[in-house]
Amino acid sequence: MTNETNDISTEQWSEVLVQALPYFKQWCGKVVVVKYGGNAMLNEELKQAVMEDIVLLNTIGIKVVLVHGGGPEINHMLERVGKESKFIDGLRYTDEETMEIVQMVLTGKLNKDIVGILLQKGGKAVGLSGVDSGLLRAVKTEKDLGFVGEVTEVHPEILTSLLNEGFIPVVSTVALGEQDDYARYNINADTAAAKIAVALHAEKFVQLTNVPGILRNIDDPSTLIKRIERTAIGSLKATGVIAGGMIPKIDCCETALKGGVPRTHIIDGRVPHSLLIEMFSDRGIGTMIY
Amino acid sequence: MTNETNDISTEQWSEVLVQALPYFKQWCGKVVVVKYGGNAMLNEELKQAVMEDIVLLNTIGIKVVLVHGGGPEINHMLERVGKESKFIDGLRYTDEETMEIVQMVLTGKLNKDIVGILLQKGGKAVGLSGVDSGLLRAVKTEKDLGFVGEVTEVHPEILTSLLNEGFIPVVSTVALGEQDDYARYNINADTAAAKIAVALHAEKFVQLTNVPGILRNIDDPSTLIKRIERTAIGSLKATGVIAGGMIPKIDCCETALKGGVPRTHIIDGRVPHSLLIEMFSDRGIGTMIY
Amino acid sequence: MTNETNDISTEQWSEVLVQALPYFKQWCGKVVVVKYGGNAMLNEELKQAVMEDIVLLNTIGIKVVLVHGGGPEINHMLERVGKESKFIDGLRYTDEETMEIVQMVLTGKLNKDIVGILLQKGGKAVGLSGVDSGLLRAVKTEKDLGFVGEVTEVHPEILTSLLNEGFIPVVSTVALGEQDDYARYNINADTAAAKIAVALHAEKFVQLTNVPGILRNIDDPSTLIKRIERTAIGSLKATGVIAGGMIPKIDCCETALKGGVPRTHIIDGRVPHSLLIEMFSDRGIGTMIY
Amino acid sequence: MTNETNDISTEQWSEVLVQALPYFKQWCGKVVVVKYGGNAMLNEELKQAVMEDIVLLNTIGIKVVLVHGGGPEINHMLERVGKESKFIDGLRYTDEETMEIVQMVLTGKLNKDIVGILLQKGGKAVGLSGVDSGLLRAVKTEKDLGFVGEVTEVHPEILTSLLNEGFIPVVSTVALGEQDDYARYNINADTAAAKIAVALHAEKFVQLTNVPGILRNIDDPSTLIKRIERTAIGSLKATGVIAGGMIPKIDCCETALKGGVPRTHIIDGRVPHSLLIEMFSDRGIGTMIY
Amino acid sequence: MTNETNDISTEQWSEVLVQALPYFKQWCGKVVVVKYGGNAMLNEELKQAVMEDIVLLNTIGIKVVLVHGGGPEINHMLERVGKESKFIDGLRYTDEETMEIVQMVLTGKLNKDIVGILLQKGGKAVGLSGVDSGLLRAVKTEKDLGFVGEVTEVHPEILTSLLNEGFIPVVSTVALGEQDDYARYNINADTAAAKIAVALHAEKFVQLTNVPGILRNIDDPSTLIKRIERTAIGSLKATGVIAGGMIPKIDCCETALKGGVPRTHIIDGRVPHSLLIEMFSDRGIGTMIY
Amino acid sequence: MTNETNDISTEQWSEVLVQALPYFKQWCGKVVVVKYGGNAMLNEELKQAVMEDIVLLNTIGIKVVLVHGGGPEINHMLERVGKESKFIDGLRYTDEETMEIVQMVLTGKLNKDIVGILLQKGGKAVGLSGVDSGLLRAVKTEKDLGFVGEVTEVHPEILTSLLNEGFIPVVSTVALGEQDDYARYNINADTAAAKIAVALHAEKFVQLTNVPGILRNIDDPSTLIKRIERTAIGSLKATGVIAGGMIPKIDCCETALKGGVPRTHIIDGRVPHSLLIEMFSDRGIGTMIY
Repeated sequence: MTNETNDISTEQWSEVLVQALPYFKQWCGKVVVVKYGGNAMLNEELKQAVMEDIVLLNTIGIKVVLVHGGGPEINHMLERVGKESKFIDGLRYTDEETMEIVQMVLTGKLNKDIVGILLQKGGKAVGLSGVDSGLLRAVKTEKDLGFVGEVTEVHPEILTSLLNEGFIPVVSTVALGEQDDYARYNINADTAAAKIAVALHAEKFVQLTNVPGILRNIDDPSTLIKRIERTAIGSLKATGVIAGGMIPKIDCCETALKGGVPRTHIIDGRVPHSLLIEMFSDRGIGTMIY
Repeated sequence: MTNETNDISTEQWSEVLVQALPYFKQWCGKVVVVKYGGNAMLNEELKQAVMEDIVLLNTIGIKVVLVHGGGPEINHMLERVGKESKFIDGLRYTDEETMEIVQMVLTGKLNKDIVGILLQKGGKAVGLSGVDSGLLRAVKTEKDLGFVGEVTEVHPEILTSLLNEGFIPVVSTVALGEQDDYARYNINADTAAAKIAVALHAEKFVQLTNVPGILRNIDDPSTLIKRIERTAIGSLKATGVIAGGMIPKIDCCETALKGGVPRTHIIDGRVPHSLLIEMFSDRGIGTMIY
Repeated sequence: MTNETNDISTEQWSEVLVQALPYFKQWCGKVVVVKYGGNAMLNEELKQAVMEDIVLLNTIGIKVVLVHGGGPEINHMLERVGKESKFIDGLRYTDEETMEIVQMVLTGKLNKDIVGILLQKGGKAVGLSGVDSGLLRAVKTEKDLGFVGEVTEVHPEILTSLLNEGFIPVVSTVALGEQDDYARYNINADTAAAKIAVALHAEKFVQLTNVPGILRNIDDPSTLIKRIERTAIGSLKATGVIAGGMIPKIDCCETALKGGVPRTHIIDGRVPHSLLIEMFSDRGIGTMIY
Repeated sequence: MTNETNDISTEQWSEVLVQALPYFKQWCGKVVVVKYGGNAMLNEELKQAVMEDIVLLNTIGIKVVLVHGGGPEINHMLERVGKESKFIDGLRYTDEETMEIVQMVLTGKLNKDIVGILLQKGGKAVGLSGVDSGLLRAVKTEKDLGFVGEVTEVHPEILTSLLNEGFIPVVSTVALGEQDDYARYNINADTAAAKIAVALHAEKFVQLTNVPGILRNIDDPSTLIKRIERTAIGSLKATGVIAGGMIPKIDCCETALKGGVPRTHIIDGRVPHSLLIEMFSDRGIGTMIY
Repeated sequence: MTNETNDISTEQWSEVLVQALPYFKQWCGKVVVVKYGGNAMLNEELKQAVMEDIVLLNTIGIKVVLVHGGGPEINHMLERVGKESKFIDGLRYTDEETMEIVQMVLTGKLNKDIVGILLQKGGKAVGLSGVDSGLLRAVKTEKDLGFVGEVTEVHPEILTSLLNEGFIPVVSTVALGEQDDYARYNINADTAAAKIAVALHAEKFVQLTNVPGILRNIDDPSTLIKRIERTAIGSLKATGVIAGGMIPKIDCCETALKGGVPRTHIIDGRVPHSLLIEMFSDRGIGTMIY
Repeated sequence: MTNETNDISTEQWSEVLVQALPYFKQWCGKVVVVKYGGNAMLNEELKQAVMEDIVLLNTIGIKVVLVHGGGPEINHMLERVGKESKFIDGLRYTDEETMEIVQMVLTGKLNKDIVGILLQKGGKAVGLSGVDSGLLRAVKTEKDLGFVGEVTEVHPEILTSLLNEGFIPVVSTVALGEQDDYARYNINADTAAAKIAVALHAEKFVQLTNVPGILRNIDDPSTLIKRIERTAIGSLKATGVIAGGMIPKIDCCETALKGGVPRTHIIDGRVPHSLLIEMFSDRGIGTMIY
């Protein structure tokens, strides 16, 4: 690493520090919820950089919760056990057996893999699912897709306890049913993360994605929109700037904003240490919706 | 439930309370580590009774840690994915792929099932594995059986934090390697539980088994030995009273005793509420080794 | 005692515990005011059982205040010193000399006897009178009966301090006058106890009496009314169900209820451990007015 | 009171304050045990002055314990009930009935009278006997005088709790027997006070008496010895300077000194506010033994 | 000092204490702001007595802030450096160079001299100026007199911190400009002291002056007005009782009273220990405005 | 400032942060004593950079004490008041009048100027001298140079109190005499700073100078010695590498090291933000002696 920094002059070095240090007091002791998943999870080098950032944030007293979803490993396991997927109107139906596989892979494999990397970087990571201490409760989605649910209650006491003791909670997004329904439900990780951010009165909700943020012209990264006021979301959707896969992501931001989280971010997980830069500089990494 | 208690007279009722209440102050705030597994886990009604006891103990301020192992579900999953077991000198060899299945079933299924039952009974249960926060670190066993390890370090901070906040930690026995080895190891659940009891300075270490305790004559339950002093273990082994499957159980008790746990118990998980009776009466349920 | 419990089966034992334990968290740290007096005080065996219950409640963290009145010993002492009683309209007139005897017997004998028994049972009992720290202040009753007063102020700081330190306060019901009147007044123990319960924001106010509770038919114990809502007291008086000596007892309950004590009880002190059964079971011992 | 101070000049006034104030920090939060009894108790005006001093000391944060003995009232009551005293070798024998009278008068009358006066002066006084919370435990004296005992254990927790909450404990000197002996014993109040001072790690032990202190010539108050080192007691006894009724008082001081109380005082309770002067000036009021 | 007190009788001594002690609890932990300056500062003996009083007050737990102004030493230094004063309409104009001298003498000499005396008397004095931690912020006075300002904001955190740790803050009255103006301003010490008293929610604001207080007839000390209600100030000014140099002093009292300080005092610093007498007696030293 | 950082790439930015952040936890809450003086104080731009660094360190929870000496302003003022300096063996003699000027300039001018700049940068700076709360006590130096002293005692309570409350203490190096000597003494600022570092159990003692550090060849900055073990100081002096003005600086470092300060630094105050770079990078700014 020494080599890489040889070309940073002392003036530049102090410049960065002078600008970055004031952010410390601002963020110290604050809660930041980071959603991490999909493609950003596949590149091993980026994964390492993301985990390094999370441990650094934790080290300096920021309370980070990492929420992750699944990925290709779930399908891989379903194939291995010879489970065929049933589809309803083109949407996958999650029967009980499938749900068991989903939970095992998410909670018993992916979650522990992330915990392992954070531990290697020096962070006291603890893996949880939405089942633990009844963190996430859900109901079936309107359209019956079996054990696919939508989060109705977040009970964040376990997260608060862990954050206060300096641990990094890593949450896999499986939920319990509501009240006397103790079945497991597969839920959308982005939405779960947004709702956790609200329940924890988080200062920031960050989605690490594999796009640069919201672009006016989707083919031209130089058209990145750095800041969007919440009130402008409607017209950006109407004009098609926010479209396709970006819509659910923006909707999660809106959920968090409505719930009182002051700032939400869609940032490019493919830029190494994008999380750090977002939190300790005025440089534009992705889009802030506030 | 009212019916069942109709035949308890008021005199009997007050008698039980007068005798049981003094135990409260004695145990309140103390740590008790319970190992639960094997056949005791298979009878659903007993499982419910055990979980009810654990929640009751937690409710009245006793700090209970539940440690569980695996069982037939692991083999069942190995079969489903078509994984054939390799044996060395008659002992199963755990290759990396097997280890992954073991972890998924233990941590992603059995652990969450137990957490779910405890939640239903009203306990704030939180599932962990030995990986979380680096709770259990291990080295390979002397005889190379792949990813089969033996626990060398326990880092109980995460358990202490959870217990202090009133949670019930449920631990599945997967361990990380030592130092820079972040591989996963399958470990013996009984031994892990004993070492956790030592690390937590537990007041009691209880193994819930499917035998009445240590019997002088294995075929005659009336020959139950209620109390064994630690110094007597040697001669009981020499005379064959402690033999067979009881030897590793007694060895775990000895590990706990040597580590400073004042009382260890081998009790009969098949007797409903045996845990409660053991803690709140002078009645003999199983064998106490001290 | 072992003999007596031989006929309780292990199933019954665990049954009692499973039902009783949840009450622990409910009552732990709560204040319970117990009025004890009259005939219940005369049977030595019952007295021992009552004191045992109070010490047990204290042991498990319940804050018990015991309020007691006098009894035949006062008359006995008045006779010994040759003091003749004066009566006005059939009510005894308490002159200064009589009041001095009353105070000496209540505070210097009966109070210390109760303290002594509680100490023997292992409770840290501390005897007080209404004089100490100005706990009870009173004015003369409307009808002039000399130093007979009625409580107008309760200053419960001394009780709160003692309860917080784990002591069992035992209060004899002598009061100081109001403001600059430092004379002593003889007051009704039941009413004083009810007012102390109010001042301490007690969770329960219990009168230990020598009747089974409120009976529809006074000659038939099987007609016990287990629960009476406060609003029903009026009609029960009107129909004569509540009559005679029960009226002042019910009135004390009403005083406590109006002052915010959620539950009041008239229970049978002649049933051994009735206090314990009332607090740790759903069995009917006496009448609850709420 | 305004009149009396008219002849104190402003210079004198400030002179007193300048000298007295530094004692505040020295005594604040410290424990002082005052033994008060006998003749000093009979003069009503002096009694008022003593009580005023104790309340003032309490007001400014000094922790005062007042220990009192009996007096002529006990004999008076014994006469009233027609109890004749039995004597053994010229010493009064205390049978059970006598002991009961002693306890009633000390605890039920004198103690509450003192509490009442302190309350009138504004002090939060709480009356206790040696029975309460097992404060004083005793054994029979070597010579069998019935229920006359000598203190063997002091359990000062109740005093510490009350002092920490700002109360003024007033202790009447009746003791319980040792261990399983819950009989009451009449004990010497001076010795009990000295032992309480030791148990509380008091800073001062003060005996308020009706003599000016230790005089070289008992008939000449100007021969007062202001300070006596503990090592000098022996020779002062040998030369007859300490003689007669002064011997047990000096012995109590020695008990306190040996137990670690740094300063003990025999002061003249007949001088109004002698306690205050002793604590807040260098003026000689009585004799300090250290 | 022993000699001087020889003529105070023991009765007088206890009389003073009995009257003074109740004031202790009243003032303990309370904030008192003392303005000290002008002629009262010149008499060395009085200065010593004032400082002795302040240390005594601090010793017994009263939180004293001492605010001082300048005096002849400033002019003396201006002369030494050959600085000639410019006058506008008869008022001295403070140019930057003069302001620098003012600050050096106030903060670098007088302040440290006072700190030194307090230290000698045993007080933990700490010298501050209005510059430190931005304690006093000011704007130029309406009439332009250069760096003469009037206090607009008090930031008392530094005083609170020091008082809570038992230090005696000694404040010299130099202020910073407002907001981005970090120039120094010379300010009126009386007014600054009054505003500090308000900001600290002081219990008392005391001006130590060289007059006996407010006199009905300025030539007759016996016409001292001991108490003035705030509402009476207007008419006393109208009738000329409050006139001349007394007007600004009364105005400062009014500033403090309006800001919530319950009692303000103008007392005679020439009477030794006048501060002590004012706080611990009912004797009239000067005038209380409330 | 935005312009200057345009040429720092995002990669460089995150590189700096990744390397700097781990130092945060290391230094947070630790005490760092910085000596600042001489020529480094004259360049206004550097002064601003140094003050910015100190405020940043304070902002992120590092406890910084700034110790400063005097400079040309003292001579300037001595000239203005026409004070001629007396010399003894070539050393300036400090008579009482000179000492008064020294104190006024150091404490009343330079100290407040530094406090003012820190306030402008957002730091809660509080100026103190060694007189305040008796921070520094001294004796005359062996050679009589009038009021020139050498520090014998440091009483750091006032610094600890201020640091714990988040203030930045700025200390001017004037000392009081020892014990009853309350005269002021001029003391060497470097030595005073080292002794303050020892008394505070500082983690670092930093001297900001106007040289690059210790050079093997004084004319060649590239021969900077980055680290010197304490044991090597002797031989470096012997070989003339440490010579001239560097000797007293090294001696101060040795004083600090002997007193338990783990790391001392001589760094180049002329490099902007040298303090920040020293604390948050591995880059060599000056010499570390440890």
